[in-house]
Amino acid sequence: MARPTIGHLDPLFVQLMDEIKTLTQYVFQTENRLTLPISAPGSAGMEAAFVNLVQPGDKVIVCQNGVFGGRMKENVERCGGNAVMVEDPWGRAVDPQKVEDALKANPDAKIVAFVHAETSTGALSDAKNICAIARKYNCLTIVDAVTSLAGSELLVDEWGIDAIYSGTQKCLSCTPGLSPVSFSDRAVEVIANRNTKVQSWFLDMNLVMGYWGGGVKRAYHHTAPINALYALHEALVMVKEERLENAWARHTYHHKALAAGIEAMGLQFVVPSSERLPQLNAVTVPEGVDEAAVRKLLLDQYSLEIGAGLGALAGKVWRIGLMGFACNQKNVLFCLGALDSVLTAMKAPIQSGKAVNAAMAVYAQG
Amino acid sequence: MARPTIGHLDPLFVQLMDEIKTLTQYVFQTENRLTLPISAPGSAGMEAAFVNLVQPGDKVIVCQNGVFGGRMKENVERCGGNAVMVEDPWGRAVDPQKVEDALKANPDAKIVAFVHAETSTGALSDAKNICAIARKYNCLTIVDAVTSLAGSELLVDEWGIDAIYSGTQKCLSCTPGLSPVSFSDRAVEVIANRNTKVQSWFLDMNLVMGYWGGGVKRAYHHTAPINALYALHEALVMVKEERLENAWARHTYHHKALAAGIEAMGLQFVVPSSERLPQLNAVTVPEGVDEAAVRKLLLDQYSLEIGAGLGALAGKVWRIGLMGFACNQKNVLFCLGALDSVLTAMKAPIQSGKAVNAAMAVYAQG
Repeated sequence: MARPTIGHLDPLFVQLMDEIKTLTQYVFQTENRLTLPISAPGSAGMEAAFVNLVQPGDKVIVCQNGVFGGRMKENVERCGGNAVMVEDPWGRAVDPQKVEDALKANPDAKIVAFVHAETSTGALSDAKNICAIARKYNCLTIVDAVTSLAGSELLVDEWGIDAIYSGTQKCLSCTPGLSPVSFSDRAVEVIANRNTKVQSWFLDMNLVMGYWGGGVKRAYHHTAPINALYALHEALVMVKEERLENAWARHTYHHKALAAGIEAMGLQFVVPSSERLPQLNAVTVPEGVDEAAVRKLLLDQYSLEIGAGLGALAGKVWRIGLMGFACNQKNVLFCLGALDSVLTAMKAPIQSGKAVNAAMAVYAQG
Repeated sequence: MARPTIGHLDPLFVQLMDEIKTLTQYVFQTENRLTLPISAPGSAGMEAAFVNLVQPGDKVIVCQNGVFGGRMKENVERCGGNAVMVEDPWGRAVDPQKVEDALKANPDAKIVAFVHAETSTGALSDAKNICAIARKYNCLTIVDAVTSLAGSELLVDEWGIDAIYSGTQKCLSCTPGLSPVSFSDRAVEVIANRNTKVQSWFLDMNLVMGYWGGGVKRAYHHTAPINALYALHEALVMVKEERLENAWARHTYHHKALAAGIEAMGLQFVVPSSERLPQLNAVTVPEGVDEAAVRKLLLDQYSLEIGAGLGALAGKVWRIGLMGFACNQKNVLFCLGALDSVLTAMKAPIQSGKAVNAAMAVYAQG
């Protein structure tokens, strides 16, 4: 990021854009031509998916099992669409049967939208299955992959995902600020044949495409965040060097060690193990413990940040991230040791002094 | 930007946000509480102004004298508003009399929108006067200050501007990717009392405000582009150290030297000198010269990028930027020398060998 800024239409920069596009196709496992990073954070990537695909009056099945499904509903409604909610408990995966029931009950639905990896709860939903169901009912799919991309298996083409967005600051290990997105040819056709203009000029993929090389000649749309794109390029190269499959396996491996330590302390995970997202570990705060004080001590004394609960889980859970570059043995052991130490000093009801050993036992198995 | 990324709710980062807010108020010369950088480029800042202030059916007077007035029209229409265009020739300032005529003819207009400094033509409009006229007819104003901020006099509070947006990559000398914006209390009241939700969730200032410290407690809205904000903080500190008035004067000073050189070559400016923007110098391409070949030679041989014409001026002009840090004597002389040399080698109809001396004569006067 510290390299000199060059022009957003400089031939060298255009070459970098082409490489970023190809690398983004790789991490999404897609050949979708419309694959690029939106010049704004993941929230804007979400909005890009909805404003381009939802037209006024469209019915959209929105699955909610955490904060981000609620944000999807907001997006549908602000596009003039009609959101049909499929609710699941916070901390559980989306139930595919409920999705199918909603599709049966709403034959006029055009889109199914869901969060692959709920960052607010740590639940991983079965994107492959939900997309297959949506396709059966002739619906497009919009998938939030902010926390799953490069951390959990995600096969955009094989699973038939129509629109997907992510963020750079999770398992891609990049700085925050960009949102990689991809749209299938089916989705592009819908965008190209809308009856109304996309309500956002900035996020209109018909225009963004022009800049990112959809047509014969590149057309200026907005000034790209050059230095942020240098960072994304490098982050994508690093994922490619590791290979996606290895990155997915690494997240699972270190999650297992962390989980062993958490459970050895006597703490509970929010999400059942079969639906658990390796890179986002939501742990229930034990009775009587001041959760904010624990986070503050970890930050002030250990320079270790763990997340607070969001929405329905605010004040009830901690969220421990194990994402991208940060997902390694040293961090797992450091985090367990620090948490054990802080909770023990606060006389919290935990099993002290066992967490690190429990994680080491997992590592010893390799 | 190369410093380690910290959390978007880390107390140290929140302190940085507060400093950025205060510094942004300084560069805009405003005490508006709603002053902050949007986490996306200037185009998104423009959209933030329109989606928050324009409601379906609202009539907006839009002044167009270049590319960006056209983009404003797009924004109004995508918000369901009705754009009444006030047209001026490309390369001229907005004519305040035409604005007043339009307001007389459209007593139901709610907003006047115009570009302070047209980046596509290099024309500077009289923002103070246009805002006074708009206020007389009880209209809010939306002002595009992408290229004027920190380069030309701009007094948000004194001139009574209601909504203003800029970019980081022009006279603030920062990397591209953020858009400083400011809204007056009158504008905030309109936003808070809308009948309809803001159509963009990402740009809804009611929500963005919550994160940037409008309320009692900071609420998570989106993940801020941390490292980009480090860069903006430093860029703003540098402007404050120089003092705004000195920055404005520096842009005028070096523009005069550049202009003397350009005119000594026998080349013509697009914009009359009284309406000319110092930081964006649009120069007419002489008859018979391949303008793209000149830009390519400058880039390849001198690592010097000058801009092409946009919209109605495509192929007809070069646009020479003198912005922020890059606006200095060395760059002016380097640019004139390179342009002189390339045009002479191409046997273009210019006065060769005079440009650098003409600029030096201006510098000799101090």
